[in-house]
Amino acid sequence: MSRFLHVVAVPEAVATAVGMAPDPVTEDIPADHAPGRVLCADVIAGEDIPGFDRSIVDGFAVRAEDTAGSSESVPALLRCAGRVAMGHAAAGFSVANGGCVYIPTGGVLPKGANAVVMVENTEETGDMVLVKRPVSYGENILLHDDDYRRGAVVLPAGRRLSPRDAGVLAACGRTSVIVSKKPVVGIISTGNELVPVTATPGPGQVRDANASMLAAYLREYGCTPKFYGIVPDEHEAFETVISRALPECDVLLLSGGSSKDDRDMTARVVAGRGEVLVHGIAIAPGKPTIIGRIDGKPVFGLPGHPASAFVVFIVIVCPLLDRMLGQTKALLHTTRATLGDNIPSQKGREEYFRVRLVNGTAQPVFGKAGLLNTLVASDGLVRIPSGCEGLELGSEVDVILW
Amino acid sequence: MSRFLHVVAVPEAVATAVGMAPDPVTEDIPADHAPGRVLCADVIAGEDIPGFDRSIVDGFAVRAEDTAGSSESVPALLRCAGRVAMGHAAAGFSVANGGCVYIPTGGVLPKGANAVVMVENTEETGDMVLVKRPVSYGENILLHDDDYRRGAVVLPAGRRLSPRDAGVLAACGRTSVIVSKKPVVGIISTGNELVPVTATPGPGQVRDANASMLAAYLREYGCTPKFYGIVPDEHEAFETVISRALPECDVLLLSGGSSKDDRDMTARVVAGRGEVLVHGIAIAPGKPTIIGRIDGKPVFGLPGHPASAFVVFIVIVCPLLDRMLGQTKALLHTTRATLGDNIPSQKGREEYFRVRLVNGTAQPVFGKAGLLNTLVASDGLVRIPSGCEGLELGSEVDVILW
Repeated sequence: MSRFLHVVAVPEAVATAVGMAPDPVTEDIPADHAPGRVLCADVIAGEDIPGFDRSIVDGFAVRAEDTAGSSESVPALLRCAGRVAMGHAAAGFSVANGGCVYIPTGGVLPKGANAVVMVENTEETGDMVLVKRPVSYGENILLHDDDYRRGAVVLPAGRRLSPRDAGVLAACGRTSVIVSKKPVVGIISTGNELVPVTATPGPGQVRDANASMLAAYLREYGCTPKFYGIVPDEHEAFETVISRALPECDVLLLSGGSSKDDRDMTARVVAGRGEVLVHGIAIAPGKPTIIGRIDGKPVFGLPGHPASAFVVFIVIVCPLLDRMLGQTKALLHTTRATLGDNIPSQKGREEYFRVRLVNGTAQPVFGKAGLLNTLVASDGLVRIPSGCEGLELGSEVDVILW
Repeated sequence: MSRFLHVVAVPEAVATAVGMAPDPVTEDIPADHAPGRVLCADVIAGEDIPGFDRSIVDGFAVRAEDTAGSSESVPALLRCAGRVAMGHAAAGFSVANGGCVYIPTGGVLPKGANAVVMVENTEETGDMVLVKRPVSYGENILLHDDDYRRGAVVLPAGRRLSPRDAGVLAACGRTSVIVSKKPVVGIISTGNELVPVTATPGPGQVRDANASMLAAYLREYGCTPKFYGIVPDEHEAFETVISRALPECDVLLLSGGSSKDDRDMTARVVAGRGEVLVHGIAIAPGKPTIIGRIDGKPVFGLPGHPASAFVVFIVIVCPLLDRMLGQTKALLHTTRATLGDNIPSQKGREEYFRVRLVNGTAQPVFGKAGLLNTLVASDGLVRIPSGCEGLELGSEVDVILW
C-alpha cells in the first residue's frame, strides 16, 4: 500500500458516506418517548384546534360595535346576561345588542359576541357593566381553527421532535408516533497502544478515550452504540470481530489505529471483506480516514487522534446518520461569532478549527489534534473552506456547536 | 383577592425562585451515564496524560540538531537503529548523534531523541535514512503531561458533562463520577377546561398540552418529571393532590388555570398550605405567575397559555433548576442574529418574543400566547429589556435557543 494517501475533497467524502445510507426503518413509539426522535410520517390535525372560538382574557364577551366611542369618562353601558363557565359550552347565552356575558380566559365565546373586553377596562354595577374602552371586531378572541385547521400538517415528517412538539402532540390527542428506529452503530477499537478504561496503562499504553466519546455522542444523536472492545492489530482477530459485529449493526466505526500500520491494516481488512471507497480526505484534522462498505453496510476507519476522530465523525459520519434517521435538518446548531484571533490554514483542504465562545467572540483553541484538553476547552468548530488561506481576526464566522 | 396583580420585576422573581433552591444532592453514577449530568466534584488527573512523550506522526525520532540545514537536494544522512513498536516502551533504543529510530504515531519517544521527522520527508536506503527537511526541537512530539498534568483539574464541579467529556473521563480511567441527583419535579394540571390527551374534548374543552410539554423539557434538562394528572378547580381536591405530591417531589409546577378564577384558587391553596412570595411578574407573556413555598419546597403557579408557561419556565424556573443541579453555566445556548422585523414592546416589563432563525436572521413569529403553532414554528426567544419600547429591524440581538 502506498504511503501517500489519495485524498478526496470533503463534499465527495460526504456524498460517498450519505450514498450508502439505507432508508429509515420506522417504528411506532409512545408519544412520551418521542422528543429527540425523528418523525417518519406527518402528524395531521384530526380536528380544528382549539376547536371552538374562545376568549384569551378574563372579561366580557360583547358585540364590538356596542363599545364604539366608549371611554373612561363616557363608558358604554351593557347589560350582563350571565357568566360562561370554564369547560362548558356557552349554551343558553347569546349576546344581543346592548348585552354582554362574563367570560373567563379560555371560555367559549357565546353566540352573537364578536370580541371580548378585558375585565381591567370594565366596572360592574349590579347587572350592568360599564365598558371604558372600545374593542375592535375579533379582539381578544382565538378562533376555533386559529392554532391548526383540521387536516393541516402539524409536524412534518423528517422533523426531530422538540419538547415543545410534545405539547402539540398532546393537543392533537396523539399518544403514539411513527419515528425512525435508532441506528445501531458498532464501535471497534484498534491499536496495540490501547488499554480499556479500567486498566492501568503500562509503558507506551493509553486508555481508549475515543470509543467512550463516540458512544456518548451517538447516544445524544439518537443512535444506539454497541461496543466490541479493543482488538489487537492482527488481521485475523480484527476480521473475526468485524464479522461478528456486522449482522448486529447498521454502521461500523473502526476507531483508533493512529499509526500508519494500523490504518493500512484497517484498509486491508475492509478491502478484503468488502470495498474501500475512500482512503484519505482533504480535511484537517482527520486526513487518514477510510470510508468503506462491507455486506452493504457503511464502515468508517476513523483517525486515532481524539480531535481528528470527532471532527470526522461530525463532518462525515453525521450526515449519513441524518439520512438514516430520516432527518431533514441537521441536528447541530450553529451560531455566528466574531473571530478573536487569526487562523492560518492551508489551501487545498477544509480545515476545522476548535474555538471557545466568549461573549460572542470565537477564540481559537490552539493545540495538537492528539490532545483531549482542546476538545474539552472548546465549544465548537469553525470551518475554513479549502480554497482559503486562513481567516482574519474580526471576521464574522459560523461556529458549529458541539 | 384583588383583581390587579402586584407585579415584581423579572430579576426579583428569579432571585426569589433561586433563593429557595436546596443544595444539590449528590450520587455516584457509572461514567457511561454521565453525559448530560452535572458534576458535583472536580475530576482530577490521577497521573500525567498521555503519560509518556510520544510521536504525533509516523516518522523517525531524531535529535533536531542532526537535521539542521537538510533539504531535498542536500539531505541529512542518519543511521536507523530500529523500530519502536506500538504499545511498548522504547527500551533498548536510544538516539545518539547521527542516529534515528522509526516511530509510529503514538509511539514512545526513545531516549536521546527530541523531535520526529515525518516519514513523508524521508527516504530509507537500507539502514540509512535520508532526512530532507530540518525539524525543530520538540517538533511532532506530545510531552508526557501535555494533555493533563497529574493533580490538574480535568473537569470542574458544576460542569454539565458533554460527550467529549466522556472521552476525558475514559482517559483518566474514571468509571464512575459524582453528579447531582435529578430533581423530581411534580406537575399538577388544573383547569375545568382540561381533559387528558387520551380524551376527546367536549364542548369548551381542550386537551392538556402544557403538562406534556413541561415534562419533555424537564427530561431534556436533566430532571425527573412526575405527573399528577388534571385536578378540577376545587380547593379541596387541589389541596389533596398537593399534599400527596409534596413529599415525593423537590419542586411543584401547578400548570394550567388560565382564567382568573383558577389563578386565584391556586394562590389561595398555596397561601393556605404555605406562602405566596410573588403573584404577578412584569414579564410578557407570563404575567399571572405565582411563586410560592410549601413545606420549604418551591411551588410555581404557571400561566395557562402554552407560550406563557414555556417562557416563564425558561426564564424563572430554569435558574432554580440550575442551582439545584449545581450547574454553574446555564444550559441554554444563545446565538446572535439580525432582527428581521420591528418588535414593539411596552415599557415597564420584560418582553420575550418568539423568533424563527433563517440564515442568521431572527424573524419574529407574531401570534397570541395561546397558540401552540407559534411555539412549534419558533427556534427561540429574543428578550426586550423592561426599559425599552421595542427593537428595530436590523438590530443585532441574542436569541435564546430552545
